[in-house]
Amino acid sequence: MSGTRDGLILGIDPGLAGTGFALFAEPNLVLACSTVVTIPGRDGARLLTITNHLRSIIAGNPPAEASIEELFMGRNATSAVGVAQARGAILNVLEECGVPVFEYKPSQVKVILTGYGNADKSQIGRMLAAQVKLPEGRLDDHARDAIAIALCHARSRKFARAATR
Amino acid sequence: MSGTRDGLILGIDPGLAGTGFALFAEPNLVLACSTVVTIPGRDGARLLTITNHLRSIIAGNPPAEASIEELFMGRNATSAVGVAQARGAILNVLEECGVPVFEYKPSQVKVILTGYGNADKSQIGRMLAAQVKLPEGRLDDHARDAIAIALCHARSRKFARAATR
Repeated sequence: MSGTRDGLILGIDPGLAGTGFALFAEPNLVLACSTVVTIPGRDGARLLTITNHLRSIIAGNPPAEASIEELFMGRNATSAVGVAQARGAILNVLEECGVPVFEYKPSQVKVILTGYGNADKSQIGRMLAAQVKLPEGRLDDHARDAIAIALCHARSRKFARAATR
Repeated sequence: MSGTRDGLILGIDPGLAGTGFALFAEPNLVLACSTVVTIPGRDGARLLTITNHLRSIIAGNPPAEASIEELFMGRNATSAVGVAQARGAILNVLEECGVPVFEYKPSQVKVILTGYGNADKSQIGRMLAAQVKLPEGRLDDHARDAIAIALCHARSRKFARAATR
């Protein structure tokens, strides 16, 4: 395993109103993270804002792999529709760009970060700060979740590779 | 309004497993319709199959406008997620290609086609056959729904324009 650009992981926390992106380099560096916030309006325009940002990230720092949460269909079906639409547009662009995508359940992210599948936001935040070198400044929820899903994939990938040695 | 190419309407019935497309020309001609069926596998690959087909339709016969059903979050949340993801990927590509999108509720489609908001599939099928020149051969549900949503937009557009004359 290396800390080279080949191993860059793009973590994504999708949403129509806000989508978080994080570029993670082994072993523990967040190169960049950003949250695209879209203004209420036509879905197509909001989705294109998100995918244009995604394309610019991929063009600037080609990730080797992307990591995204499996969609959880919770009580709020309306926001789940927005998340699913954003997710569809994002997955389509990642496929177009040839970036392999890995998906994890929210509980897997929590287990891998904190050892505990029901960890709350503050526990995840603390463990994240302890395990990775975060960018300066305050992180919003989308950016933090994007870092968490990227780290989840990094750990999971490392774990799987360790088994084959 | 005219029956020229400028007025072409692309009706779309989105789904991850199958997406229907219909190109409709005023006053009552279905120029082409098709259903893209995707095989189970990675969402990204399925979405790209759908959007590649959409791009080829747009390149071959540029539509002036697209028409798509508003997403109805029914009892089957799992299939709704697939529909929402396909819808997001499709709306993103339509926006990229500069095709304006119009959305209608399922009940609006039924009212405009049959005069009755709770019409069933067979009533819609009969009224569709009576109102438009359908392509030869048997139509599957996705293709038929794509024609219905295109026709709904054609009628709605004509109705709105009539009011301004």
